[in-house]
Amino acid sequence: MPQTPHIERHFTATAVVRDIVIGMSDGLTVPFALAAGLTGAVDSTGIIVTAGLAEIAAGSIAMGLGGYLAAKSDAEHYAKEREREKREVAEIPHEEMREVAEVFQAYGLTEEETWPIVQALRKQPKNWIDFMMRFELGLEKPDPRRAVLSALTIAGAYVAGGFIPLTPYMIAHTPSSALLFSVAVTLGALLVFGFIKGRFTGTRPVRSALQTALIGSTAAGAAFLIARLISE
Amino acid sequence: MPQTPHIERHFTATAVVRDIVIGMSDGLTVPFALAAGLTGAVDSTGIIVTAGLAEIAAGSIAMGLGGYLAAKSDAEHYAKEREREKREVAEIPHEEMREVAEVFQAYGLTEEETWPIVQALRKQPKNWIDFMMRFELGLEKPDPRRAVLSALTIAGAYVAGGFIPLTPYMIAHTPSSALLFSVAVTLGALLVFGFIKGRFTGTRPVRSALQTALIGSTAAGAAFLIARLISE
Repeated sequence: MPQTPHIERHFTATAVVRDIVIGMSDGLTVPFALAAGLTGAVDSTGIIVTAGLAEIAAGSIAMGLGGYLAAKSDAEHYAKEREREKREVAEIPHEEMREVAEVFQAYGLTEEETWPIVQALRKQPKNWIDFMMRFELGLEKPDPRRAVLSALTIAGAYVAGGFIPLTPYMIAHTPSSALLFSVAVTLGALLVFGFIKGRFTGTRPVRSALQTALIGSTAAGAAFLIARLISE
Repeated sequence: MPQTPHIERHFTATAVVRDIVIGMSDGLTVPFALAAGLTGAVDSTGIIVTAGLAEIAAGSIAMGLGGYLAAKSDAEHYAKEREREKREVAEIPHEEMREVAEVFQAYGLTEEETWPIVQALRKQPKNWIDFMMRFELGLEKPDPRRAVLSALTIAGAYVAGGFIPLTPYMIAHTPSSALLFSVAVTLGALLVFGFIKGRFTGTRPVRSALQTALIGSTAAGAAFLIARLISE
């Protein structure tokens, strides 16, 4: 299964921006929520910083390595399916010709209207295979060199995002005063990040800013309540 | 930008399985790594359970709500692009006809060979728009009703996954004895989950099992080392 999002042409952001968005969304949200949650339960900033850094390490590695393996697996899936199409085009060409015609029949074209395309593809097996990959299976050729860069970008964005809510806990003396600063800087960061994300992804920026801040606040609020309930 | 993975036909798993995989991958990994990390730093299972539950709450809400908003945003993106194609087909049909021909020219077809398709689509504007959405832009129509179900499935799988590494800390008396049980049950769960995931996604099951366990172990190992370094 394709585990990385499908890329299409109207989309203005690059793959790197997409990876930064993926990593920073979670990096800003989960360490923030964890730190806020622990503030309701423990009275040492040291433990909160330790837990936060452990979470940043765990989350960035899980996301980065997960992204790397997903990209690798997509590339292998593509190669496997391409081998299969190649075999089918060579061994059962008439079946494949029928499949080309079926792709177009879904759009109201008759068999006669699709005939020239079917015949033309038949003469060029390589193009025929590529055509089937894209139009029958809806698969885009993944760039295998992207896997490592993608993993590092996601992990780096997660770490960068995670340090924003955690820094106040490294400076302040008590968890409750750190929480106030953490909420302020993180809400600010979520709004700015959501706004920029909206610009790149085509969602209205102000709405994207508010949605991103809402996710962070809800997660942090729930973590805070749960931690406080347990520790009472 | 499409924030949810692209779905294609050779793929055997359903969207629900995909959501379970997304939620459980992180749910098994991050709370496990956090608990293991804190074991190197604090001597109370209570704090580890509190931090773990706060993380499960934060992570499941961030992933579930994030998935919901991404699905909503995909649906809006699709609707917006469709409106644009509809307008273009009505206002600049010759430009759009050229774009249809270009899609096929990339596969080595001549303008004459694509002519019947272009003419046939021209007579059926609705099919023409659908054709452009899929073949020019590579966009699949998202199911708007899936957003809520998808969010709940991802969040539920995250919670279910997160309780596996955390349960030993709720039962054992010391963090270090809990860690042994947590590593054992979580590695077992990661192997089983990775194996099943491989079956559904087309990766070789044994390899998928080992990869999934590797991600969990690496994340937990890094979290453990970082937490121990800080707390010394």
